[in-house]
Amino acid sequence: MKQGVLNIIPHAKCICVPLADGGDGTTDALVAAKNGTWRELTVQDPLMRPVQARYGLVDEGKTAVMEMAAASGLWRLREEEKNPLNTTTYGTGEMLRDAIERGVEKILIGIGGSATNDGGTGMAAALGYRFLDRENRELQPNGGALNCIQKIDTSNVLEILKNVEILVACDVTNPLTGDRGAAAVYGPQKGATPEMVKTLDDGLSNLAQRCRDDLEIEIGEFPGDGAAGGLGAGLRAFAQAQIKPGFDLVADVAGLDNALHGADLVITGEGKLDASTHFGKVPSGVAKRAKRLGAVVIGLAGSVERETASLYEDGIDAVFSIVPGPVTLESALQNAGDWIEKTTEQVIRLWQRANGTS
Amino acid sequence: MKQGVLNIIPHAKCICVPLADGGDGTTDALVAAKNGTWRELTVQDPLMRPVQARYGLVDEGKTAVMEMAAASGLWRLREEEKNPLNTTTYGTGEMLRDAIERGVEKILIGIGGSATNDGGTGMAAALGYRFLDRENRELQPNGGALNCIQKIDTSNVLEILKNVEILVACDVTNPLTGDRGAAAVYGPQKGATPEMVKTLDDGLSNLAQRCRDDLEIEIGEFPGDGAAGGLGAGLRAFAQAQIKPGFDLVADVAGLDNALHGADLVITGEGKLDASTHFGKVPSGVAKRAKRLGAVVIGLAGSVERETASLYEDGIDAVFSIVPGPVTLESALQNAGDWIEKTTEQVIRLWQRANGTS
Repeated sequence: MKQGVLNIIPHAKCICVPLADGGDGTTDALVAAKNGTWRELTVQDPLMRPVQARYGLVDEGKTAVMEMAAASGLWRLREEEKNPLNTTTYGTGEMLRDAIERGVEKILIGIGGSATNDGGTGMAAALGYRFLDRENRELQPNGGALNCIQKIDTSNVLEILKNVEILVACDVTNPLTGDRGAAAVYGPQKGATPEMVKTLDDGLSNLAQRCRDDLEIEIGEFPGDGAAGGLGAGLRAFAQAQIKPGFDLVADVAGLDNALHGADLVITGEGKLDASTHFGKVPSGVAKRAKRLGAVVIGLAGSVERETASLYEDGIDAVFSIVPGPVTLESALQNAGDWIEKTTEQVIRLWQRANGTS
Repeated sequence: MKQGVLNIIPHAKCICVPLADGGDGTTDALVAAKNGTWRELTVQDPLMRPVQARYGLVDEGKTAVMEMAAASGLWRLREEEKNPLNTTTYGTGEMLRDAIERGVEKILIGIGGSATNDGGTGMAAALGYRFLDRENRELQPNGGALNCIQKIDTSNVLEILKNVEILVACDVTNPLTGDRGAAAVYGPQKGATPEMVKTLDDGLSNLAQRCRDDLEIEIGEFPGDGAAGGLGAGLRAFAQAQIKPGFDLVADVAGLDNALHGADLVITGEGKLDASTHFGKVPSGVAKRAKRLGAVVIGLAGSVERETASLYEDGIDAVFSIVPGPVTLESALQNAGDWIEKTTEQVIRLWQRANGTS
C-alpha cells in the first residue's frame, strides 16, 4: 500500500500500522508494528508437557503481548488428546509470570484458540494460587478438577501481580456457564462429550461460587467470562484483568489513533471484506476510528462483497478488490503484494483527481 | 453504469453514449445511441448470392450507418468458399445505393471483416460504374478481374451519389499495394494462396493506374487505401469518400462532445484495458476528448493491465476491474452488468468523498 501511494505521490507521508483483531496473528502484528522483540521460554502445554512458546515485548519492554494459544492452544494437541477434563491453562500462567517477573507494566493477551475448559485455574496456579479439595489437598488445575474445588488459597500468589495491568483481547461475549456458557458452546470442539459438557459446566459454576466465597469476586455474567473455557473469567478473578474488544486493545497498543490523526486518506484491508467484517474485524475498527476524525477510508481485499451496508455504516467509504480480472485464488494469493500496490495506485489516482490535487 | 451512479447520487444527471470503434458492433451502437431505425434489404453476398442485410438510419433518416461486413463480410462464407479472386463488394454497393436513393445526406461506413480484395470495384459496380476489358466487355467486379480492367466507364454512375458525404471508419493504415498492401497483409486470411496474393496485388496496381488514367484520381498511398481489400481506396476513388479514424467518426455521429461538455465525471470501459487500448479503442478516444474538457475519467473493464502508461497519457485517470475477487471468466461474463453497476458505485463513493460532495 505504501509503495502504491508513493508511486503516485512521491512526497506523501505514509504511516503504516500493522493491526490485528486480537485473534490469530495479533502478537506478530504488534511486535512488527511496535518494532518489538520476542521472548522465548519453556512452558507447559495443555497436557503439562514442556514446550517452547514465545511472547512479544514492546514499548521498551514495558508492555508484553501474548496469545494464550502459544502455550495452551488446541493446535498443541493431537485429535485423540483433546479432552477438556485434562487440559490446563498452566502454560499461559507461566508466560504471564515470566512477563511480570521481567517487570512489565502492562500485558495484552489474546485468548482465542484454547484447548482448555479450566476456568483459568491452571493460569492462576502458575501465578501461585492453590485450589484445594475438601481434604485440603492441592488439585491439578484442569477442567476435571473444578467440581472438587472447596477452597482457593491465595497465600502464595505472586506479590507483584497486582502491579501489572492485564488486558484481555476478546470478542466472544459468552457468559461462563449455562446454555451459552463456555462448556456448552465451545466444549465440543475441544473434545467434550455431552456428559463432559455437563461436568465442566457444573465445575465452572462451582468455581464461580468459590470465587464469590473466598475472593469476594463475582464472575460468570460478564461478557467474555465464558471465553477460552472460562479463562476470561479466570483472568478477571485471579489477575484483575479487564476484558476488552480485541481490535480496540490492539489498536491502542499499536497507536492507531495517533497515526490516524490528521490523515487525509486511510487505506485498510483484509482477505475478504463482507458482512462479517462488521463484527470486530480490523477494517471495521479502523473505519470507525477514522470516520470520527473525518478521513476518507478505502477498503482493499482479495475478495469484496459490495452489497454490504454494514461496511458503509462502519465508515468504509468504498471497497475495491485487488484482482485485475478473472484470476484463480492461487494467483491472487501469489500476487497479493503487487496487486495491493497496483490497486492502491488507482485509488490514489482517482482520489487525487477527484479532490483536485493532481 | 448509470444505475450504479444513481444508486449513490439519485439526482445525478447521467448521459449514456453507446460508442464503438468503427469495427464490429459499430452500427448497433450508433442505432442505439441515436435512437435510430433499421433498414433491411436484399443484397448480394461476396459470391453474388442474395442475402438479407441491414443498415441503420439515424438523425431522422439523414444519416445512414452501415458495416461492409453486413453484406460482404468474411463471416458470410464457409471455409472452402473463401477465395478473394471470386469475392466482391457488390452487396456493400447495394447498401450504399439503397441509402443514397432514400435521400440520406451522410453515410458512415465501417469496413472491417471483409471477404474481398476487389479494390471496391464491386461496390462501384452497384453504383453504376462499369469495368471493361480490352475488348470493351464488362467484367465481373471481383478480385480476379482487376488485372483485366482496361477502362472505367462512368456514364451510368448514380447521379445523386455526388450529393452524399461518405465517411469511412477505418483504423487500418495499410497502403493499397506492395508488402504492406491489402493482398499481402490481409489476403491470406481471406483464402489467398501466395500465387493469388501476387495476382491480387498486380490487380490492385492496375486498378490504381486505371483510376489515374480514367478518373484522374490518385489512389494507393493514402493510409487506409489498403483496408478491406482495397475498398478503402475504392470508396475514395468511386464515391469521394473520406477515410477517418473509426472512433472519431462514431463519436461525432454519436454526439460525444456534446455529452462530455460540462461533465464532472466520465466513466468508460471495455472488455480489457491494456496497452492496445491506446490504438483507436473507445476508452482511449473518450479519454482524449474528456481530458480536453477537464473531466475526471475512469476506465472499467473485466480485465485491467495496470502498468500501462499509455492509458494515463490518453487521459484515463484510473482503471478498475469490475470483478469482486478471484472468479472465472465465465462468471465475469455472466455477471458483467451487475458488477459494472457495483464497481461504478464504489468509484462514485470514493469520488464523492474525495471531492467533498458526500
